[in-house]
Amino acid sequence: MWPGLEALPWRWAGGAALALGLALLVRGWRWRRRRRAPRREVLFFPSPVTCTAALLGEPRPAPCPCPLPHGDSPLARLLRRLLSARRSLELCLFAFSSPQLGRAVQLLHRRGVRVRLVTDADYMALSGSQVGRLRQAGIQVRHDQESGYMHHKFAIVDKKMLITGSLNWTTQAIQNNRENVLIVEDAEYVEPFLAEFERIWEEYNPANYTFFPNKKEQK
Amino acid sequence: MWPGLEALPWRWAGGAALALGLALLVRGWRWRRRRRAPRREVLFFPSPVTCTAALLGEPRPAPCPCPLPHGDSPLARLLRRLLSARRSLELCLFAFSSPQLGRAVQLLHRRGVRVRLVTDADYMALSGSQVGRLRQAGIQVRHDQESGYMHHKFAIVDKKMLITGSLNWTTQAIQNNRENVLIVEDAEYVEPFLAEFERIWEEYNPANYTFFPNKKEQK
Repeated sequence: MWPGLEALPWRWAGGAALALGLALLVRGWRWRRRRRAPRREVLFFPSPVTCTAALLGEPRPAPCPCPLPHGDSPLARLLRRLLSARRSLELCLFAFSSPQLGRAVQLLHRRGVRVRLVTDADYMALSGSQVGRLRQAGIQVRHDQESGYMHHKFAIVDKKMLITGSLNWTTQAIQNNRENVLIVEDAEYVEPFLAEFERIWEEYNPANYTFFPNKKEQK
Repeated sequence: MWPGLEALPWRWAGGAALALGLALLVRGWRWRRRRRAPRREVLFFPSPVTCTAALLGEPRPAPCPCPLPHGDSPLARLLRRLLSARRSLELCLFAFSSPQLGRAVQLLHRRGVRVRLVTDADYMALSGSQVGRLRQAGIQVRHDQESGYMHHKFAIVDKKMLITGSLNWTTQAIQNNRENVLIVEDAEYVEPFLAEFERIWEEYNPANYTFFPNKKEQK
């Protein structure tokens, strides 16, 4: 018998535990990395008024001579997230009258991003609404025909980043109200919101419209 | 020399590897648990009307004889998340008139949960508002004195679960509107919302009120 042979079970047990531990460490590390990856950001409003011309690609001499501050702001960060879209943008917005956000959406449309907008029928016709302009620019718009409000305020960028919160896309809300916006990439949120968008998009298909004057009676 | 003594280094090495492997196993497991732990849930409204008497601890014969359906609903799930509070509940709500949500908050207050409510001054006095009842029940309420709206709609349960979205806490919104509510436990969201609540709570301290009639002039 070779010396040390009786110690073999220890070598086996120790080696096996070490291998298993390392495997679980690697696994745990991957889980940890995966957990770190998604973007998670919160924006609070009101936002100070800042110059957004550079973000919106408006031609101005550099440095921009306008009297507004040129630093960061919640609105600028919201615009940057939106303008990161490369392929698709789903918009589900109760009220949409902010000129800056309207220009950002038109810019994305001109860049070839597929934009679809769902909105509330009552609010889309109000003075200052961006909805008419977006339609004129060739963007697909659908609206409700319901007694309740289409009260969502969310956007989905490239089917992977959700932008949602209390903020209606109006200058009043951006500049004067206490509001929140979450930037979310976790699939547990993005996927249900995408499904909700597609459900509403199909329900609001003009082929389903009825033409009776009882709309919004109950409000 | 005793037999087997020459195997001692193997036993040491094996024992050490076993201990290290086990430690790594526990570490990997903890990372995994931490990653799995945060609750991530989305509720979409309108919610079908269901009986919430059992949730709200209202004495009824079992099974409840009321004609409403007794199944699950987005409102029932929202109530369950709220009623899980054991220590504290921060509420930051533009409009609060839902009788069920009002009863849930009163129930938590009676159970000894520390409830604080921030709301919008314009909406708190509207007919059907729950704010007066909550104040009468002894719950601390503070409101804005600003030209903009206090338009948040969020709640924080035990400083670790955030409930936020587009939903105002009104029966109209719950039963008729298209709305969303996110249930979130990720610290990246919960902590900024907690900080926002404390900031607003301090700003709306009655010691800071001014008494001029120019409130909400600009809206």
